[in-house]
Amino acid sequence: VRRFVVIGQRAFVGEAFSLANLPASSGRLDVLLRCVRAALLFSHGVRRDTIVYLVLLGAPGAPQALRIEGAAVKFLRPDERSVAVLVQKAFATPRAGSGFVTVRPGVAVAEGGLDVVLADVGDAAPYVLEEGAADLREAALDDADAVFFVGDDVGFDEATRGRLAALGARPVAVGPVSLHADDVVAVVVNELDRRTPGTG
Amino acid sequence: VRRFVVIGQRAFVGEAFSLANLPASSGRLDVLLRCVRAALLFSHGVRRDTIVYLVLLGAPGAPQALRIEGAAVKFLRPDERSVAVLVQKAFATPRAGSGFVTVRPGVAVAEGGLDVVLADVGDAAPYVLEEGAADLREAALDDADAVFFVGDDVGFDEATRGRLAALGARPVAVGPVSLHADDVVAVVVNELDRRTPGTG
Repeated sequence: VRRFVVIGQRAFVGEAFSLANLPASSGRLDVLLRCVRAALLFSHGVRRDTIVYLVLLGAPGAPQALRIEGAAVKFLRPDERSVAVLVQKAFATPRAGSGFVTVRPGVAVAEGGLDVVLADVGDAAPYVLEEGAADLREAALDDADAVFFVGDDVGFDEATRGRLAALGARPVAVGPVSLHADDVVAVVVNELDRRTPGTG
Repeated sequence: VRRFVVIGQRAFVGEAFSLANLPASSGRLDVLLRCVRAALLFSHGVRRDTIVYLVLLGAPGAPQALRIEGAAVKFLRPDERSVAVLVQKAFATPRAGSGFVTVRPGVAVAEGGLDVVLADVGDAAPYVLEEGAADLREAALDDADAVFFVGDDVGFDEATRGRLAALGARPVAVGPVSLHADDVVAVVVNELDRRTPGTG
């Protein structure tokens, strides 16, 4: 299974959330939404071998987390507004319990941030996308069971960076230019596709 | 200069255009909008060495074409809605003249389809993204002056395919999986970045 964990430093879904102005009303959740498409969709299909986690550290009070599983999600559309509506509805659904609670097929939300995600990913081999790190193309990758951590437009905070280092996450880079998070995901997915023929 | 030409078989900007339902109201212009971001933007910057053309073959009457030049465009935001508003305003601007007419800094529109774009790109080395073609990573690329033709979610029509073949466009592929057009652009951009250090 391929897992992507995208960490939004300011992202949240709350009262002010507006589809007409996502970047300003959601702490740049739009960055994370575009990663959902890049990780989970290919031409006319969903990647059933992929799970995406969004970590929204900007949430008032507790951070929020969202999980979308390619194997179970339904009606995932590629346009940004559709993904925004899905995420908005997911957080608006009443729920009970701790950890990830499924609110619709393939979509679960949790109170909590990186901790709740780390508890969920288990023993997958961790990689962290970092500028200037070793080239992804040259890296040994556990393409059968891996988790890739990706920062948003402002990158990782020190606490997150420390947690990932303690976890033993291996730094990898996608190239010489600092890319948008969704382009980073697209390039990683392409590298994994190339290593596992028959994917898709 | 890097050029991307994205061809939308059904795409148009017209009376029914709705930001609340882009995929259905614009003949999947959303596919093309996402390519604009992938081609022109990197983290906190615009790629000044890149020009994107959108060809909207779904336009009632004549096809429409749009050109966005990284070296001159202002206020290009990454979220899909912002790019949609930019394109909508560009086509709504009164204009006179044939060929590409600049309607705001770095943004020009034209009546016409592939012909008007081909007249504009001049002698740039042409490549066409095709599934199953030679691997982009192994291809000799004129990264100084190239134009990449990319299809939308339904691919190229036969007329377009014939024109590109007559032009001598070299088929290249990005990998074993059929990707969304914007992911194709992201992967091509990454390959070009890797070949031209100092980019961005």
